[in-house]
Amino acid sequence: MEATDVAIDEAQVLEKLERLLESEDAAVEPLTELLGSLDARETARAVCELPIEQQAELLRRLSPEAAVEVLDTLPEVTVVEAVEELPADVAAAIVHELPSDDQADLIGAMDSAAAAAVLAELADDEAERIAELAAYPEDCAGGLMATEVVALRDIATVETTLRRLRAGATKLRDLDVQYAYVVAKGRRLVGVLRLRDLLIADERSRLTEIMIADPLSIPAETPLDELIAFFDSNSFLGVPVVDGEGRLLGVVSRRAVDEAAEEQATSDYRRSMGVVAEELRSMPVLRRSRMRLSWLSVNILLNVVAASVIAAYEETLSSVIALAVFLPIISDMSGCSGNQAVAVSMRELSLGLLRPSEWLRVWIKEGSVGFLNGLVLGGLLGVVAALYAGNVWMGIVVGGALAINTLVAVLLGGVIPLALKRAGVDPALASSPLLTTVTDMCGFFSALSLATLLLDKLV
Amino acid sequence: MEATDVAIDEAQVLEKLERLLESEDAAVEPLTELLGSLDARETARAVCELPIEQQAELLRRLSPEAAVEVLDTLPEVTVVEAVEELPADVAAAIVHELPSDDQADLIGAMDSAAAAAVLAELADDEAERIAELAAYPEDCAGGLMATEVVALRDIATVETTLRRLRAGATKLRDLDVQYAYVVAKGRRLVGVLRLRDLLIADERSRLTEIMIADPLSIPAETPLDELIAFFDSNSFLGVPVVDGEGRLLGVVSRRAVDEAAEEQATSDYRRSMGVVAEELRSMPVLRRSRMRLSWLSVNILLNVVAASVIAAYEETLSSVIALAVFLPIISDMSGCSGNQAVAVSMRELSLGLLRPSEWLRVWIKEGSVGFLNGLVLGGLLGVVAALYAGNVWMGIVVGGALAINTLVAVLLGGVIPLALKRAGVDPALASSPLLTTVTDMCGFFSALSLATLLLDKLV
Repeated sequence: MEATDVAIDEAQVLEKLERLLESEDAAVEPLTELLGSLDARETARAVCELPIEQQAELLRRLSPEAAVEVLDTLPEVTVVEAVEELPADVAAAIVHELPSDDQADLIGAMDSAAAAAVLAELADDEAERIAELAAYPEDCAGGLMATEVVALRDIATVETTLRRLRAGATKLRDLDVQYAYVVAKGRRLVGVLRLRDLLIADERSRLTEIMIADPLSIPAETPLDELIAFFDSNSFLGVPVVDGEGRLLGVVSRRAVDEAAEEQATSDYRRSMGVVAEELRSMPVLRRSRMRLSWLSVNILLNVVAASVIAAYEETLSSVIALAVFLPIISDMSGCSGNQAVAVSMRELSLGLLRPSEWLRVWIKEGSVGFLNGLVLGGLLGVVAALYAGNVWMGIVVGGALAINTLVAVLLGGVIPLALKRAGVDPALASSPLLTTVTDMCGFFSALSLATLLLDKLV
Repeated sequence: MEATDVAIDEAQVLEKLERLLESEDAAVEPLTELLGSLDARETARAVCELPIEQQAELLRRLSPEAAVEVLDTLPEVTVVEAVEELPADVAAAIVHELPSDDQADLIGAMDSAAAAAVLAELADDEAERIAELAAYPEDCAGGLMATEVVALRDIATVETTLRRLRAGATKLRDLDVQYAYVVAKGRRLVGVLRLRDLLIADERSRLTEIMIADPLSIPAETPLDELIAFFDSNSFLGVPVVDGEGRLLGVVSRRAVDEAAEEQATSDYRRSMGVVAEELRSMPVLRRSRMRLSWLSVNILLNVVAASVIAAYEETLSSVIALAVFLPIISDMSGCSGNQAVAVSMRELSLGLLRPSEWLRVWIKEGSVGFLNGLVLGGLLGVVAALYAGNVWMGIVVGGALAINTLVAVLLGGVIPLALKRAGVDPALASSPLLTTVTDMCGFFSALSLATLLLDKLV
């Protein structure tokens, strides 16, 4: 009952929203009132269901501040598409309201013509700053940093600093990280100041006395992996980003790194299951179909290649037709065993417990487990096959093939992520198809060549 | 070259560490010196490679503070096992040094006898507090909260507060969240104070004047999903946790929620690939083999069930042996299509764009994509099959079976995570085996029953 009520409410909300957006009367109050009654997830659900023109119309009618609040609730792909649909001046007013790292992400994700049009509507210095930030890859320090930083001169005292902060109190409002940075002439970073230390310090102290001197800092090119390792090793809430001359560029917060790491992890999961692009079910059918087919068509090709091994042994198979029952099992089980080894390698890589060069260590560790599990699984399936065919040799062929193939699968699965990582290919996306193609071929080959060898015992 | 050098260094470090731990001389300086030369990941790699007795010996020799630094670098499963191996008094000294949420996680994860022994060594009030915290499930507000909170009385002024903070300055040191909480008599929560507001406030103000009154708070039972949604909707760095009477229990930081969400996402990924427990390659072979077999043995059973469909049609198959080449392809491709639908549902569930009750919406959206992709993939494979067998009916059987099965797979894959979620079963772990078993059976059945129907056209 409850679920149905919720569904009705949502249908009503969506209908009301659409009616408001279709009416010529552009009064904004009913819209803000309706949106104000929804929480973040309800807003996201309603807005995602709107056609893209109406999403843009909604953003156009709201104030830029209110539009940003709506955008904050939406998946990134929806944000980009809706903003691209807006007139450049409206989009620019919204971009102006975003924090610096979100500005750069959005502009970087838009198609280049739309992005250029938006930048042209912004003040020159803001446009330049955004374009510079957007030029960094999204998953490195430059792409994750915020440029909203409290930078204080090294010659100040606690008292003058507090007076200045009190005068411009709002500047502290939206800071994600609770540090201020002490800079020398030319914005060269010389120290870090925790705001809480400012709170408890003697007012006559100089900042250079209470700051942490020679602070850790990172270059803008630092990749996400190293940022994760950095925050694993240090308990800071943020780390300053500097250029080649040691000048303060911005700050990467632990929060931004955590969020990027989570996004990477969930997207690893999705890509390992063949969702290559960020699909939402509210997208048009043809587009969703095409997104999925890009992955499926590679897979069907690989599958045909693997199955060609069976075709080569059709003669054997027609003499020992019972084998056809067990070929899909051998193929699927080897895939399962190999994927476990893939997942353990992915985990050890991300924990820093394994380096891409250590394939020998992986082989030693996987070899023993693969041998054991091959014996157990091969033994099990062998017994089933022998009973089914009423022929012990059938058990030996099927069980032997699965045992061999389990060993091959874990050896291969353990090192595939290492090899892909070294080659710069995304292991989450490519490991599984690569693995199952090879293990399918190897499994079919083991079973059918063993059967050919023992043909007189089997028929 | 570089990789080899690194490997040699690490072997040397490990050897030196083992030699130090084996020597009777319990001098701690060489140990701390060696560990001091390693960063977090190097420490983790070296310690994980040690046998468990030596891991415990290392922790025993270090000061509790230094032991905590080592533990911070290790995967959770290693921490728990090493601490369980310690004498209770040594373990208690280490637990005493941990932040409150880590204390509770560790005690909660240890086996109950070892946990009780450690608690018995701690002061009564600390033991009681830890036991209370450990009683909360790990992924709810109570399990994620820290009890280190700055709680200020509502009758204080800014000046008296600053004086008290300056007197006990260290109390602020290790706070994760930059809020203080204002409480009335009986620790009842009445307001939230941002430390930065304290910094810029007039010293004569009362805390009640500058605090945010009637702050948002959450009960200790709030599950992780709702915490993620809460921090999605609000930009706070933390949220206070209260009991049924509104008394302040602790604070859940955005950081703790982000980290738990990331852990959940990576563990979803691993479990979807059949890594049920937290395996590390440094664990003993038999244990790793057993961990993996628990998942594999369920899968082999399901595979045998699915393959029984082929066995039932052995007669048809022996007349149309070419079909045996295509059965594994149909099985694998349907699994791929279905897993895409699983992953999209998992994503929409976690974004809050889909509720577990909305299977009808999923079916409508998946039906259209499944129909289209079924046509494309079935058409492709049908052409291959017709060419291979030199018989257009063969193409119709194989292509038709894949088309039907693609539709079935996405309809099923789209709703399986919803059904499992409602049933309280982990969708990441169970979706894929469930899906592929049903789609295998359905695919084999479609292909073989179609072939039986059209047998006179095929031979």
